[in-house]
Amino acid sequence: MTFPVVGMVGGGQLARMTHEAGIPLGIRFRLLSDTPQDSAALVAGEVVVGDHRDLGTLRDFARGCDVITFDHEHVPTDHLRALEADGIPVRPGPDALVHAQDKGVMRERLDSLGVPCPRHRIVQDPADVAAFAAEVALAEDEAGSEGAGTSDGAGFPVPVVLKTVRGGYDGKGVWVVRSTGEAAVPFRAGVPVLAEEKVDFARELAACVVRSPHGQAVAYPVVESVQVGGVCDTVIAPAPGLPGDEAVTAQQLALRIAQELGVVGHMAVELFETRDGRVLVNELAMRPHNSGHWTQDGAVTSQFANHLRAVLDLPLGDPRARARWTVMANVLGGDYPDMYSAYRHCMARDPQLKIHMYGKDVKPGRKVGHVNTYGDDLDDVRERAAHAAGYLRGTITE
Amino acid sequence: MTFPVVGMVGGGQLARMTHEAGIPLGIRFRLLSDTPQDSAALVAGEVVVGDHRDLGTLRDFARGCDVITFDHEHVPTDHLRALEADGIPVRPGPDALVHAQDKGVMRERLDSLGVPCPRHRIVQDPADVAAFAAEVALAEDEAGSEGAGTSDGAGFPVPVVLKTVRGGYDGKGVWVVRSTGEAAVPFRAGVPVLAEEKVDFARELAACVVRSPHGQAVAYPVVESVQVGGVCDTVIAPAPGLPGDEAVTAQQLALRIAQELGVVGHMAVELFETRDGRVLVNELAMRPHNSGHWTQDGAVTSQFANHLRAVLDLPLGDPRARARWTVMANVLGGDYPDMYSAYRHCMARDPQLKIHMYGKDVKPGRKVGHVNTYGDDLDDVRERAAHAAGYLRGTITE
Repeated sequence: MTFPVVGMVGGGQLARMTHEAGIPLGIRFRLLSDTPQDSAALVAGEVVVGDHRDLGTLRDFARGCDVITFDHEHVPTDHLRALEADGIPVRPGPDALVHAQDKGVMRERLDSLGVPCPRHRIVQDPADVAAFAAEVALAEDEAGSEGAGTSDGAGFPVPVVLKTVRGGYDGKGVWVVRSTGEAAVPFRAGVPVLAEEKVDFARELAACVVRSPHGQAVAYPVVESVQVGGVCDTVIAPAPGLPGDEAVTAQQLALRIAQELGVVGHMAVELFETRDGRVLVNELAMRPHNSGHWTQDGAVTSQFANHLRAVLDLPLGDPRARARWTVMANVLGGDYPDMYSAYRHCMARDPQLKIHMYGKDVKPGRKVGHVNTYGDDLDDVRERAAHAAGYLRGTITE
Repeated sequence: MTFPVVGMVGGGQLARMTHEAGIPLGIRFRLLSDTPQDSAALVAGEVVVGDHRDLGTLRDFARGCDVITFDHEHVPTDHLRALEADGIPVRPGPDALVHAQDKGVMRERLDSLGVPCPRHRIVQDPADVAAFAAEVALAEDEAGSEGAGTSDGAGFPVPVVLKTVRGGYDGKGVWVVRSTGEAAVPFRAGVPVLAEEKVDFARELAACVVRSPHGQAVAYPVVESVQVGGVCDTVIAPAPGLPGDEAVTAQQLALRIAQELGVVGHMAVELFETRDGRVLVNELAMRPHNSGHWTQDGAVTSQFANHLRAVLDLPLGDPRARARWTVMANVLGGDYPDMYSAYRHCMARDPQLKIHMYGKDVKPGRKVGHVNTYGDDLDDVRERAAHAAGYLRGTITE
């Protein structure tokens, strides 16, 4: 057998779905998982249980792998460099991945590339945050923005977004603060804190691209991502009403970032679309991403298959959509632990529904799966996805 | 967790692809495999290595499974009855499955249902085969068939197909004989032998259906199956030029057989299309089948996903095609063991190509994978599939 071994660090749902996409390719998939009960560990053939923060564990795991890739961004950058020094291809490599691991590094690099971002600055303490808020308010005044500069006594003139530079996801490690008192909380962890203007965006978009080591790259259709409570709720592909030239601009921006940063594999560029049609980069994720789950049933080649093809330096697959509209809705845990019993109703109601569950125990608010729907009528496709996600969660009962 | 455990007996590529299709459903998949290197055992999480012909092994395996289903038809019927007596749902059940296990039982039952089949009879020895050949020649003469009755001395007036009633597949256990001397071979195994007329068919078709325990059933589009050397080479969905009423007739025939025989799960009905537009049943397979592999990329719901939904008594998924044409081409082993090195060329030449490899060692003539292509232009779709299959095998080098 000359088929390569892909080592996947992390046993979450992204690893699970990457394994699923790798089965047809005939490659061997080796998993480093925190526990035997992790989402991917339940369905994969070769599972090593161990701690991805321990270099010895990583080295043992990597021996015999042809390439290492990731389910998450939490492996220390120095460990990745050590694996590379051992001669193991790490994709994406540490020099690229650090931009998805550290929001401070990411902002600095995007600034140097002239990529449009929200106003931002590393801040030292609550007083520094207050100064940042004043700067943003002044800049917005000068730009003639509505609503800026309306101070409410002891509060900031504008709200400020604070983020720990490492470790946040799905709304964790992110705060919106309006006063020096509120601004004290994020500093307690002892991690550097990034302040960003709170963008008054029209909606959130995502531009997903895949790049291979020899520089081939493909761009998926730009999608709209609807967030609820800081967590992605629905993704619509393509983003409704997005003018063609704006979509191309967003795709080119993502392709340029991938090239400049030397990304290998799938990268999601989360974007704010402003009310005047500009896009600002919100976050980068260098791995398969929630905003690309629609591709499993809606694109010729899924993000998971293309991520694998990229990390193996194989030619990439066609990223185009197969349907006029595809909608992904996340399934969160609700009050009913028995999600399987909801299958009967959901499948009978919509024989075209695609359910993707992660094998996780149901906990309120936990992402335990998603559904995809597709078709020609956006209202119908959205309704079907929302209904199935709500019925599985238990918030819709008919 | 309330998700069910599906026990799959047999570790071949059908089990492998069923596991792949089960991952999104979040079900647990438990495999009984002959060896740890079997196709499905390489990629599944819960693997029991054991002999499916041993009742004790089957009973141990079945404990803790919510339902048992199959990758092949080789489990002894009595063992299946014993599992049912233990209270384990076996799907398809032994009363249905016996028709896919024993060609004699199958022909007798289809006769009783009035389903059109080739002329046939259980034969006892070579002299009996000669008598059968004479009967067929006479019947064909009476029907005014061309070419019948041309005897060549010591030979039969028409060739006869002999099949052992159990154990054959992919051309194994099947002989075309033209004399009593040739007819001696099949009797040597000591298994009952079925004689069938050699149908002068226009082409082979397959009608695939899925049926659930409570009686819901779906029919996939009727496909054309192109055989080379007794092995399926290419499947075209839908069958080109098949009149709509003939397609519906074939689907209805397959649905009726599924209902009458109490089939649960996927069933492929292999058909001969005669030159005057009639269809005769060639074989039945009660499991996912090579003639349904196109559904992985060409239908809304794959045969594997629908087989799982059926054995779990979940509502079935939409069987309709997603593309105008889908073509599946089997990849056989050739002279070059390193099939992975062919990926680069195949993927670069056709970014829409879907490769499905089974993780098997390459041996000349062995089915080691298949490819699917789809699109609007049948000639183009066929060319792409044939090229990729040939390039992977090594018979095409550019």
